[in-house]
Amino acid sequence: MEAKQGNKLYEGKAKIVYETDNPDLFIQHFKDDATAFDGKKKGTIGDKGVCNNKISSALFTMLAEQGIPNHFVKMLSDRDMLVKKLQILPLEVIVRNIAAGSLTARLGIPEGQDLPHPILEYCYKNDSLHDPQINKYHALAMNLATEEQMALVDKYSFKINEILKKFFAEKGLLLVDFKLEFGVHKGEVILGDEISPDTCRFWDAVTREKLDKDRFRRDLGNVEEAYQEILKRVSK
Amino acid sequence: MEAKQGNKLYEGKAKIVYETDNPDLFIQHFKDDATAFDGKKKGTIGDKGVCNNKISSALFTMLAEQGIPNHFVKMLSDRDMLVKKLQILPLEVIVRNIAAGSLTARLGIPEGQDLPHPILEYCYKNDSLHDPQINKYHALAMNLATEEQMALVDKYSFKINEILKKFFAEKGLLLVDFKLEFGVHKGEVILGDEISPDTCRFWDAVTREKLDKDRFRRDLGNVEEAYQEILKRVSK
Repeated sequence: MEAKQGNKLYEGKAKIVYETDNPDLFIQHFKDDATAFDGKKKGTIGDKGVCNNKISSALFTMLAEQGIPNHFVKMLSDRDMLVKKLQILPLEVIVRNIAAGSLTARLGIPEGQDLPHPILEYCYKNDSLHDPQINKYHALAMNLATEEQMALVDKYSFKINEILKKFFAEKGLLLVDFKLEFGVHKGEVILGDEISPDTCRFWDAVTREKLDKDRFRRDLGNVEEAYQEILKRVSK
Repeated sequence: MEAKQGNKLYEGKAKIVYETDNPDLFIQHFKDDATAFDGKKKGTIGDKGVCNNKISSALFTMLAEQGIPNHFVKMLSDRDMLVKKLQILPLEVIVRNIAAGSLTARLGIPEGQDLPHPILEYCYKNDSLHDPQINKYHALAMNLATEEQMALVDKYSFKINEILKKFFAEKGLLLVDFKLEFGVHKGEVILGDEISPDTCRFWDAVTREKLDKDRFRRDLGNVEEAYQEILKRVSK
């Protein structure tokens, strides 16, 4: 499948989505811009866009092979990915294996504590409301998705967690938590967005060194190096 | 069943729980103290304790008759209720039929909007964390309740909603939302706490006048009168 870049549809914090001359396809362009803390912190991470495009492409390919339908078609360039056109469900799905981030402050679970069961959370994708955490009943009442769509989203999310945990374990990495977005393509719920150090927390399995966007959020240094390290391990 | 009041076990914002000489029974004493906004606002509502004891007693009796097991044994006095001893599950269950309160600010749904499906929410009962909203996976990961217990809690909560909505409709009242607490008595999950204008939002079905603790929260006046009005309608 080929496609010529058309109008800019949407520019987000880390990506731009373009229409193409094929009505079923979009181009997802990965930027180096980084934001954190609900947009309060802004910066640039050198070659983040290249790393995230390559990492996501590898992971989407692997997930498709293991039965997870997703929007990836192919890489067009270092920063551009051809994807299936999606009607994004306005839900962020977060899966957690180890306590970190907002979970620790909200629920008082110490960072680094293994969770006896993976935790799945929904947030309502809405910038002006700051992406509030919701549950299935809220999503139904607000018509964000149907019960059937959410059942699929849950099933895929837990399966993706199992696949990715195993994949990253073989690369010497702990998959602490990650965010997914799903959408509808030709009536079918499929995985969209990206899977990268912007959207996952990765810790080295031995040293528990953080190798993700937390290095940017918390000014830990070696930010670019962390993204390169994840790309290197994913590509092995 | 009789029981002699023993040691004070726990004093909360609106109630005191005492042991009794019967190891299976507690006494729940209803106070006039009122707090709001996570304890930042404090006050007293004259005879609130008497109203809430009588209202809760009537509702618990009615719910038991309709198949909802609960901790109510009998009224001992205007402010004292004999109840079964419970190991309270550290979950607050909120059921919503009409948008109001925290829902409107968090999710941008206008106050008064009918919800197409009732919304059920869980909060983690924890004062120092300010009762954060959680879902089933958080509750499981933190060992707050088992999956089986939560399935029962959900089933009872939706059934209680149907029973109470109908009951209050016949009294000319809209049941906007309410909070429930459940506990374990001799291995069985049963409803505990209270059901009153402290824990429910009631609006007059015609005028939509608020007849609950929101009159205290928002300084709307006629606070005592609202509690008396609910008692009067419940007793009809």
